[in-house]
Amino acid sequence: MGYKLASRREKQEDTFVKVGSAVVGGSLLTMIAGPCAIENREQYLQVAVDLKNAGVQMLRGGAFKPRTSPYDFQGLAAEGLDILAEAHRVTGLPVVTEVLDTRDVETVVKYADVLQVGSRNMQNFALLKEVGRSNGPVLLKRGLAATIDEWLMAAEYIMAEGNSQVIMCERGIRTFETHTRNTLDISAIPALKQLSHLPVIVDPSHAAGKWEMVAPLAKASVAAGADGLLIEVHPCPDDAICDGGQSLTMVNFSGLMKELVPIAKAVGRECRCNAEHLVKKNAI
Amino acid sequence: MGYKLASRREKQEDTFVKVGSAVVGGSLLTMIAGPCAIENREQYLQVAVDLKNAGVQMLRGGAFKPRTSPYDFQGLAAEGLDILAEAHRVTGLPVVTEVLDTRDVETVVKYADVLQVGSRNMQNFALLKEVGRSNGPVLLKRGLAATIDEWLMAAEYIMAEGNSQVIMCERGIRTFETHTRNTLDISAIPALKQLSHLPVIVDPSHAAGKWEMVAPLAKASVAAGADGLLIEVHPCPDDAICDGGQSLTMVNFSGLMKELVPIAKAVGRECRCNAEHLVKKNAI
Amino acid sequence: MGYKLASRREKQEDTFVKVGSAVVGGSLLTMIAGPCAIENREQYLQVAVDLKNAGVQMLRGGAFKPRTSPYDFQGLAAEGLDILAEAHRVTGLPVVTEVLDTRDVETVVKYADVLQVGSRNMQNFALLKEVGRSNGPVLLKRGLAATIDEWLMAAEYIMAEGNSQVIMCERGIRTFETHTRNTLDISAIPALKQLSHLPVIVDPSHAAGKWEMVAPLAKASVAAGADGLLIEVHPCPDDAICDGGQSLTMVNFSGLMKELVPIAKAVGRECRCNAEHLVKKNAI
Amino acid sequence: MGYKLASRREKQEDTFVKVGSAVVGGSLLTMIAGPCAIENREQYLQVAVDLKNAGVQMLRGGAFKPRTSPYDFQGLAAEGLDILAEAHRVTGLPVVTEVLDTRDVETVVKYADVLQVGSRNMQNFALLKEVGRSNGPVLLKRGLAATIDEWLMAAEYIMAEGNSQVIMCERGIRTFETHTRNTLDISAIPALKQLSHLPVIVDPSHAAGKWEMVAPLAKASVAAGADGLLIEVHPCPDDAICDGGQSLTMVNFSGLMKELVPIAKAVGRECRCNAEHLVKKNAI
Repeated sequence: MGYKLASRREKQEDTFVKVGSAVVGGSLLTMIAGPCAIENREQYLQVAVDLKNAGVQMLRGGAFKPRTSPYDFQGLAAEGLDILAEAHRVTGLPVVTEVLDTRDVETVVKYADVLQVGSRNMQNFALLKEVGRSNGPVLLKRGLAATIDEWLMAAEYIMAEGNSQVIMCERGIRTFETHTRNTLDISAIPALKQLSHLPVIVDPSHAAGKWEMVAPLAKASVAAGADGLLIEVHPCPDDAICDGGQSLTMVNFSGLMKELVPIAKAVGRECRCNAEHLVKKNAI
Repeated sequence: MGYKLASRREKQEDTFVKVGSAVVGGSLLTMIAGPCAIENREQYLQVAVDLKNAGVQMLRGGAFKPRTSPYDFQGLAAEGLDILAEAHRVTGLPVVTEVLDTRDVETVVKYADVLQVGSRNMQNFALLKEVGRSNGPVLLKRGLAATIDEWLMAAEYIMAEGNSQVIMCERGIRTFETHTRNTLDISAIPALKQLSHLPVIVDPSHAAGKWEMVAPLAKASVAAGADGLLIEVHPCPDDAICDGGQSLTMVNFSGLMKELVPIAKAVGRECRCNAEHLVKKNAI
Repeated sequence: MGYKLASRREKQEDTFVKVGSAVVGGSLLTMIAGPCAIENREQYLQVAVDLKNAGVQMLRGGAFKPRTSPYDFQGLAAEGLDILAEAHRVTGLPVVTEVLDTRDVETVVKYADVLQVGSRNMQNFALLKEVGRSNGPVLLKRGLAATIDEWLMAAEYIMAEGNSQVIMCERGIRTFETHTRNTLDISAIPALKQLSHLPVIVDPSHAAGKWEMVAPLAKASVAAGADGLLIEVHPCPDDAICDGGQSLTMVNFSGLMKELVPIAKAVGRECRCNAEHLVKKNAI
Repeated sequence: MGYKLASRREKQEDTFVKVGSAVVGGSLLTMIAGPCAIENREQYLQVAVDLKNAGVQMLRGGAFKPRTSPYDFQGLAAEGLDILAEAHRVTGLPVVTEVLDTRDVETVVKYADVLQVGSRNMQNFALLKEVGRSNGPVLLKRGLAATIDEWLMAAEYIMAEGNSQVIMCERGIRTFETHTRNTLDISAIPALKQLSHLPVIVDPSHAAGKWEMVAPLAKASVAAGADGLLIEVHPCPDDAICDGGQSLTMVNFSGLMKELVPIAKAVGRECRCNAEHLVKKNAI
């Protein structure tokens, strides 16, 4: 279909994307979690420590937020990047954050371990080329109405610039159904595994748009062969500046980690869970 | 949203639909399998016996086939119903088959244990009322572009006539993506579980349209909480009159049964698998 | 794509469907109007006379209504058919009404000049075959998520039974956009004109779901080459039992008729408008 | 719905966007035409002169091309901008061209009269802000799967930075239908006219993806109230580097101009056509 570097035909072995201590695509399920946006230093550092204790491999947090309305909170920008870097120092965990502007790539790559290209920029070809010229791993979200072929072509844009560390992230597509925010295309996991050697993770939080659905969708994704999950966790979802409705509390997240253990095992993977530690702590 | 009898608000306990020896909605995962269409007596009886040995709870097979083209095979009709009834006598397993015409309901209900209303008839209100007046359990497939609310309203049509034995069957919705025949809406499982007390099964074969994807989608469905699976199995998919490309061979189906065991267990269910028996037999 | 009788390749000249005094597909634009449902005798006969005076070629009115909810008004059934037949006698205009059940075709064809197969039944193959066996013209609405090929295949089902008097009716498809009830696929008009010899009309009322949009969509349809329009008109939209929000008042409908005259002329057609008569009457 | 500056509630009178000698939103239909990409100097200048003679108000031509594949022609970049500026000098007509990168806005605004933000960048918020900070009019294409509300929000991003000269351009949305490249959402025209004071134009070429459909869709758009059209014209579509299949020849384009005259008149607009001049010239 036109993509070469991203194609399984060109490279038959699975690609492992190494990010600090984590490896996306290996036998250990990569759990990435954190709040949608970095809202303030204290809160983010606390969540980061809690998530590390729960057993996650990577932290997420937005410093630049793509919002439908120009009047909504646009992120802490530079201040957010500082907090992100501090969270990395404190926990030792790699961090992933979104970059929105070609002019910011050079800066963001200094603070973040993984550059996220969001759904709305999946065919922002200037940005794809720019992150392709950087040497950091890229988490490429599927566009709202992108076919699997177009999505692989977007990966090809990054790889054609010399950066082959691309992680594909399914996050739901736009359909007529309104019960969910987006329709999680679970079939994209086996489809990508067949067409490409790149690792595939799933963001059930943005797909569902409702926290109650995150656990079943996360379990389904692992059962279908996903290499990891990207999950929104907020210490107090009701107070979240954005996407509170789809964020898990720490207790629910650690419960999910525990539930994922046997599912991961059933498909030949490991989910490393410290749920007991966290549940106890939160139960106090 | 207008539905009452189908609503979880009206009836909080899960509904179990009893079909002969099977119970859809209980702790035992309901495996329903068989070829898309009943093509001939010998072949169907052989598949039926093999599937029973593999551990399935119910058989499927189409006697009346809804085909996009009037020039394609439309099913064996009455002859198909006879074969279906014989398969039931031979195996003791309940059988499910589609009914297309209000005038056929009275006849089909004599031969089949479950009446299937297909995707294309999900809003054929005359048919919904007619199967609602029959006393057989109904397997209600989701329409190609039906919202979850409309689908529950279709169930309500059946229930409003006095028949509360409705099994909901997700089979993929129509989207822009062309890599799969339809897009399996995995979120529909937790959505229905929240909104309704009716059991939910998944047909991964029609969703994917490709046999290679059936196994990961089946596993995902069970992990997401499905009460059962409806899977196309054909002794020789290459020779199938319809939907051969999405049918599993007996060997692949029994392999899937085995893989489902730990996934089902991880979500508190049982998948009763006789895979060893079958694999050995087929391997000869 | 599999359809033969419906194909332009098989029959190059345009098909004209004659319905009493009207001809769908000729140079005179076929205006079909009336309320969504026949609600009562007096009201329907009054609307029928008003519409005749306004210049329409055919009347519409539902006796059997396909409703999403079983608890909504389902139509006057037999009583509605009587009223429809009376409207035909009073005005001399042919009438079109929907049939929902194979068992009703024989009866409905005695009362109505055109049998409508609705969107939700576009792939109700039993119904398509049954209307194909009748000798009345059929108005075939496009399914909510039917491709143009599938729609032509549905026409083929009717034609394969010997009935070649099929009128295709575009009424909007289901998409992600929520501002309109459906998305009018205006491109379906030139597409059908190229692929098929059958006449094509447009129902802008169901497409838009909002009466304010009916006029621009009606004009666009004529400009794009539609052979006619099917428009919902109600003497008092606020009191309509169904679809009031998308119904035009008599005054607005006659205003639209007037506006269509130059558009029709610009594309080589005639729109026969008696708008002055009506506007005066209503203005009293 | 969150947008203010773009809302009809905030500003009731229609906005006219002045671009050199052209006014988008006035009674004169704004015809914008040209090849998809600027391929070479001689060809582009010839087309530009021919289009001026045919009566268009503005020229289009891509110097930076957003292509699905990184291996496809990406545009002449700086060289293309030079050619565009020369075409402007030669014909006196304003030119519109797409900008893909925030870093290019400052340069492109020096060469082009209107900055186009393409479908794939409709929610590239960094780019929207940057063109909002420039003082050039912006042609904002609707995203492939953008709702009308999201599209108006994208306009709001531009306007919130101080630039109120926004032209909305409908170009088709992504649906399940494959007969056309995209589904032209004709209803978006009346919807935008009601919700917003901004001018609305239509690009039937990208919507249809087939040149035979451009004329009926163009006529439909004008009949539905569009303020202008953006049409791909190529001297030799078969040799076009991109989008040849949807490009009109000069003869077909001038024929369309002629056909638009009475349609425009029917809806109270003027289409200024020099078709005779051109047809004669091409007929030699």
